[in-house]
Amino acid sequence: MSFQISFPGLLLSAAALLLTGPVAAEGPHRFDERTLETVRGLSEKALESDLAYEITRSLTTEVGPRLAGTAQEARAREWAVAKLTDLGFENVRVESFDVDLWTRGPSVFEEVAIVAPFPQPLYASSLGGAAATPGEGIEAEVVFFSSFDELLAFDDADDALEGKLVFINDRMVASRTGEGYGWANRKRSRAWIHAEDRGAVGVLIRSVGTSSHRFAHTGMMSRLEERKAIIPALAVSAPDADQVERIVASGETVRIRLQTSAGWRGPVDSGNVIAEVVGSEAPEEIVIIGAHLDSWDNGTGALDDGAGVGIVTAAAKLIMDEGRRPRRTIRVVLFGAEEVGLIGARAYAQARVDDGTLANHVIGSESDFGAREVWQLGSNVAEHALPYFDAMHVQMQHLGITRGPNEGGGGPDMMPLQLQGMPVARLNQNGEDYFEYHHTPNDTFDKIVPEEMAQNVAAWAMFTWFLADTELSFRATVAE
Amino acid sequence: MSFQISFPGLLLSAAALLLTGPVAAEGPHRFDERTLETVRGLSEKALESDLAYEITRSLTTEVGPRLAGTAQEARAREWAVAKLTDLGFENVRVESFDVDLWTRGPSVFEEVAIVAPFPQPLYASSLGGAAATPGEGIEAEVVFFSSFDELLAFDDADDALEGKLVFINDRMVASRTGEGYGWANRKRSRAWIHAEDRGAVGVLIRSVGTSSHRFAHTGMMSRLEERKAIIPALAVSAPDADQVERIVASGETVRIRLQTSAGWRGPVDSGNVIAEVVGSEAPEEIVIIGAHLDSWDNGTGALDDGAGVGIVTAAAKLIMDEGRRPRRTIRVVLFGAEEVGLIGARAYAQARVDDGTLANHVIGSESDFGAREVWQLGSNVAEHALPYFDAMHVQMQHLGITRGPNEGGGGPDMMPLQLQGMPVARLNQNGEDYFEYHHTPNDTFDKIVPEEMAQNVAAWAMFTWFLADTELSFRATVAE
Repeated sequence: MSFQISFPGLLLSAAALLLTGPVAAEGPHRFDERTLETVRGLSEKALESDLAYEITRSLTTEVGPRLAGTAQEARAREWAVAKLTDLGFENVRVESFDVDLWTRGPSVFEEVAIVAPFPQPLYASSLGGAAATPGEGIEAEVVFFSSFDELLAFDDADDALEGKLVFINDRMVASRTGEGYGWANRKRSRAWIHAEDRGAVGVLIRSVGTSSHRFAHTGMMSRLEERKAIIPALAVSAPDADQVERIVASGETVRIRLQTSAGWRGPVDSGNVIAEVVGSEAPEEIVIIGAHLDSWDNGTGALDDGAGVGIVTAAAKLIMDEGRRPRRTIRVVLFGAEEVGLIGARAYAQARVDDGTLANHVIGSESDFGAREVWQLGSNVAEHALPYFDAMHVQMQHLGITRGPNEGGGGPDMMPLQLQGMPVARLNQNGEDYFEYHHTPNDTFDKIVPEEMAQNVAAWAMFTWFLADTELSFRATVAE
Repeated sequence: MSFQISFPGLLLSAAALLLTGPVAAEGPHRFDERTLETVRGLSEKALESDLAYEITRSLTTEVGPRLAGTAQEARAREWAVAKLTDLGFENVRVESFDVDLWTRGPSVFEEVAIVAPFPQPLYASSLGGAAATPGEGIEAEVVFFSSFDELLAFDDADDALEGKLVFINDRMVASRTGEGYGWANRKRSRAWIHAEDRGAVGVLIRSVGTSSHRFAHTGMMSRLEERKAIIPALAVSAPDADQVERIVASGETVRIRLQTSAGWRGPVDSGNVIAEVVGSEAPEEIVIIGAHLDSWDNGTGALDDGAGVGIVTAAAKLIMDEGRRPRRTIRVVLFGAEEVGLIGARAYAQARVDDGTLANHVIGSESDFGAREVWQLGSNVAEHALPYFDAMHVQMQHLGITRGPNEGGGGPDMMPLQLQGMPVARLNQNGEDYFEYHHTPNDTFDKIVPEEMAQNVAAWAMFTWFLADTELSFRATVAE
């Protein structure tokens, strides 16, 4: 999951669009017996299936890390095409697009060390979009900020940051919803701009994430139009940030040396992998369920987002094997280049704007928050569709799922489509420990609990069936 | 803590020595009121003190990693001399000895990667004593063994390991006592010999330790007399070992590339740092309490063994501040070069054999198992002293401490002294998660819980007072 996208006012405008008009006072929706039988069967089969787990195992083992634009990501697309074809999906294809390649350099390791007053290595990792140091590295004095806000408020009238390393120490707090991520992430996104503009030679941040383990948390920095960072920017692990904080607190001046060859490498090819379960009655109407295929380079992208790939693929496969097809087409999209700025999702949405099929996308949702259990059904649909969602929820209660509010998004890769007016829904997962692993070397397959993953597939199979096997529109109509 | 020492029959012979003779049937030992008042006061003060925590903070921050024989270890000795002097200890001094220096190379990072069939980096770390690869690295096919025993039993009549990388996948099981460590460690200690003798070009082992996190667990390999390894030997993290295991299980042949500049660098200076609380009535009688000052290079040695340094130093300091001195001298020894083969402990014992003061060492104990709570009082003393230990235990029950058996050791650095007949005792700590952190980059200060550490100091202060303020010998007498 990446939140590295900026669509000012998106949620507000989308909500305004969808919620316009009088509220229709309808009674509760009732599903027919055949539908109930189908979704209950799907849930039972899903809870007994290890398909999602196996798909994720296969991707994270046979491809491993798959940074956007690299040969590894290309291998992931080949893997996906083969896997989706083997599973019997229809219309399996790759839609290519260009991405600006950023890589860390030849190694996942970068050399960072305190050189004074107490020499010792630090565990750190360049942020996506950061620049290289000169070959021999740089060494500079640290100016320590307890928070990003402190940097923003800092008076540098005397060029106090000139030639210095800016260090920002905001801490993220763990929660089920991952609420603290956006806030803690501000320093990751934008600190480089403030540091660079004030003459700093580099920026170091306490890793975003909630882990106390010695892993640096990477992730993309924001881009300002076409401006790219010219200074190095790295995240250091929480224990290392503690170390720097302790030394600074003792009144000592900290000097750090760093060496990285991170940088932008120019435009390369990436792509989204698409597969379908073609609908029986309205095949042109599309329910899009997604996940992203790319991952960061330091882990194997098991939770982010191998799990999502496994979950949505397995859910669609269970539906495909039902013996009968839902009315609408289920389109599985495994997005490329999500982590580096939703590049695949933007390309997908733009292509639908261009070919005029965007209005056919009746609703969309993405799985991109790990493999812990789903605890809430959220939606962002027209008012008239709420009784249908409430009725869906009742059928999903045996999975421990509560009903969430009718607001918010459908997952990162749904944002460009939502911005174009597509309704979205979301199966919110327990994210309590997601940021223990996310964007670190420790995002590996062993962190997934098969039973929790199966609960996700059960929820997704029911959810997708409900959305695909109805005539109901989730969009606001003119009348509404 | 290191178990890299081999004294065949040590425990047996020491036990035989100590337990010889008829059992004296004495009643329970009773402490006088003044003693009880003193130890209860020590316990109360210890539980409220953060001294051990502060000492450990200081060592792990101001020195950081301190591999035996390096400039970092020398800085640790300077730190220790200054700290012990500041705290008011007497006879603070360094006893130097030589150690054969082994280092990983210029970086804590070493490059290891699967090159076929599914290219991806692995997180791995050379074992102490391992050799370098040629500069450009080596690449070879993996021969996978599920266990060390499987390697031992392997029939290589057809030179099946010639030119290959041996991979050994034994898993360690977590327990309060750390019981599984010795068993799991066999592959770390001795796999290189079996691999090298059969023509392998390198050896990789699943990390010893119980962590599922992506850290390699380093530690010393055994030496065979003067023979040193000529092949590289590395531990890979558990998730990476899982990855290799999965690929092998799928029937594929794995090829791995590795590059390391690890190796032996020749003899250098190390030392033990000694400080005393001189006894009031029998200053020549010594109760030795120890910990080790050196650590592995990848973490900051907080649990192994910064915590021990903090605990024994704080306990002795509390006693020193009592207003009256115990009968015997309390000698705090912060050993050097423990991790690389108890080199400091051996030098210490040899020096006492040489100067004839070994018999003055009435008993010894070391804290070297992290910072979790003490749960058991163990001893290995003469039978006649057991009522005294049982009575000590009764006074320590409010700390949640049980009485253990009269067998076993007093901690790694006590082994050479125990071998020379010195009685030992041990405050056994909860080691449930010790091997989650031990010998990895993740052994850092944040893993210590101050309250648990304070409980250790309370136990150590009482324990040390009891041992130092008595006329009782813990050795078997001729009569016994």
